[in-house]
Amino acid sequence: MKVSELGERALLARIQARLPRPGTDVIVGVGDDAAVVKSAKNAQIVLTADALIEGIHFDRALSTAADIGHKALAVNLSDLAAMGATPAWALLSLALPGGTLVEDVEALVDGLVALATAENTALVGGNLARSPGPMAVDVTAVGTVHPRRVLMRDGGRAGDELYVSGVIGGGVAGLEMLRTLGGHPQHSSEVACMTRHRRPIPRVRLGRAVAQARAARAAMDLSDGLADAVRQVAEASGCGAEIDGSALPVDPGARRWWEKRGDDPVARALAGGDDYELLFAVPPKWRGRLRHARRHAAEPPLTRIGVLTGTREEYVVVREGRREPLPGGFEHW
Amino acid sequence: MKVSELGERALLARIQARLPRPGTDVIVGVGDDAAVVKSAKNAQIVLTADALIEGIHFDRALSTAADIGHKALAVNLSDLAAMGATPAWALLSLALPGGTLVEDVEALVDGLVALATAENTALVGGNLARSPGPMAVDVTAVGTVHPRRVLMRDGGRAGDELYVSGVIGGGVAGLEMLRTLGGHPQHSSEVACMTRHRRPIPRVRLGRAVAQARAARAAMDLSDGLADAVRQVAEASGCGAEIDGSALPVDPGARRWWEKRGDDPVARALAGGDDYELLFAVPPKWRGRLRHARRHAAEPPLTRIGVLTGTREEYVVVREGRREPLPGGFEHW
Repeated sequence: MKVSELGERALLARIQARLPRPGTDVIVGVGDDAAVVKSAKNAQIVLTADALIEGIHFDRALSTAADIGHKALAVNLSDLAAMGATPAWALLSLALPGGTLVEDVEALVDGLVALATAENTALVGGNLARSPGPMAVDVTAVGTVHPRRVLMRDGGRAGDELYVSGVIGGGVAGLEMLRTLGGHPQHSSEVACMTRHRRPIPRVRLGRAVAQARAARAAMDLSDGLADAVRQVAEASGCGAEIDGSALPVDPGARRWWEKRGDDPVARALAGGDDYELLFAVPPKWRGRLRHARRHAAEPPLTRIGVLTGTREEYVVVREGRREPLPGGFEHW
Repeated sequence: MKVSELGERALLARIQARLPRPGTDVIVGVGDDAAVVKSAKNAQIVLTADALIEGIHFDRALSTAADIGHKALAVNLSDLAAMGATPAWALLSLALPGGTLVEDVEALVDGLVALATAENTALVGGNLARSPGPMAVDVTAVGTVHPRRVLMRDGGRAGDELYVSGVIGGGVAGLEMLRTLGGHPQHSSEVACMTRHRRPIPRVRLGRAVAQARAARAAMDLSDGLADAVRQVAEASGCGAEIDGSALPVDPGARRWWEKRGDDPVARALAGGDDYELLFAVPPKWRGRLRHARRHAAEPPLTRIGVLTGTREEYVVVREGRREPLPGGFEHW
């Protein structure tokens, strides 16, 4: 059945029926004019919103409805992670073409709720609207953070080392693979990249652990690519940055894919976008704390990729001894 | 200049430059991965999200960009008001066609910020995305409320009187006038209705005053019409409802407009939609408290329009002695 046949009220009731019972921190959940929640004493509230628009951020032919629901929350949780926050609540605002199948909306909600539940996050409200154009999935995620544990972009200082979590480039390469291979991977490493594009994993435990251990001076997520994140952290911190091109943890599947096509894996992974890893600026003497926090969070390894420098607005990548300007960031338009 | 020519980053910078300096409750505002805010001790957090989609909720030919910005926040503040909450922070998520003029985005932000400032609300974050279809303006509003002062829908009891604030029907009639007269009103009462459609005024002070005085058992806003709100409050409270058709405070301009066209003003105002007034369920002995709270808030008068009854699921409007079923609510699709 199409959502236009079911109607807004009945669709809302179907969605409500799929939500797990929230915890005691949710005073009023879905169904009233607004949600009411209760945070721990002294906690500060962290707020972020990010939207996935059909035709811009996702393609219904390449991602399932459940993938879209997962990713719509994941990109927001990644922003909370980059602040060192603990996610707690989310709102889902859906703009749906009238022809959208009700079962696809249900699958989208299920995909979102599965990740939310894994991250102890309650879907407490939102909005349903009709769209005369593309589907839009707008999520607001709300978390909490201890007042002196917030990770901002502007806390870095010259001499701080730059660390990135996990591997990079897989999201962008995965999208290229999906477009080229149409969901029929020819190699196991391609499966991993496609999954990274469709279902990125936000580094929630890592961000929180690093913040709680005070193991970094600045942090940011890589949603618009590593080069962009390095520039933004350096600029906000009043520093320059120097990246070691040979140190970048390029996703092995992405590297293989790009090399086969004659692309430069390092340049592609730097420009990137769609990676939901975290970048940290860390004074050398905090290395031990950082390593401990990462291990405690049971997250993928961190790789030291460069350093913040005292030369403001100079962003450099060193490749085989040559200093090249760091490429610009990924712009969505 | 078009937003596609300016780019996402530069547009964000232009928007940031227009925001007033936030208060001390905003620890991290626009520009980091997420915003960080601080609420008063013991306050509960109230969260709501509502979107305006071009072609569904607004028409660029009938509303200015500033109107759209105002209304996108107003509909959310109305939801907070209906909970008795004090608005504090907002996020703005914009999906923009590439051809949108930068000056229109600035005017939209200005319209939103003007209302936000008037209501002591700080725009602390959000998102910019490109839309391959219509413009979408999605706002999340966050407020605070004292734990035992929340106004919910389900608190009503049989015998509670139903009160509505201000006048109703103006929003829907105003849209009809704009469509018919193309923004050239022929009567002063039409100007008022058009303004109500384009720039609804959320009853923030009223909702908060009634909640703080504990002057109502249940409340809801009229975004989907009075009939819908009456049904929802009655249903959630396990009651029926009886409305006195002759008591409805129909907007004088709307009444005149509908009467000229041979429409029934009471039926039209009941079905309504786009009214951002509040409905309260109030025990008769709390009348004095309610009157005091309304006067204290310096909001428009409240009108007693009916009563919650013990006959569950029976929703009636009495017109010239005849009991008729209450019409259904306004569905956006």
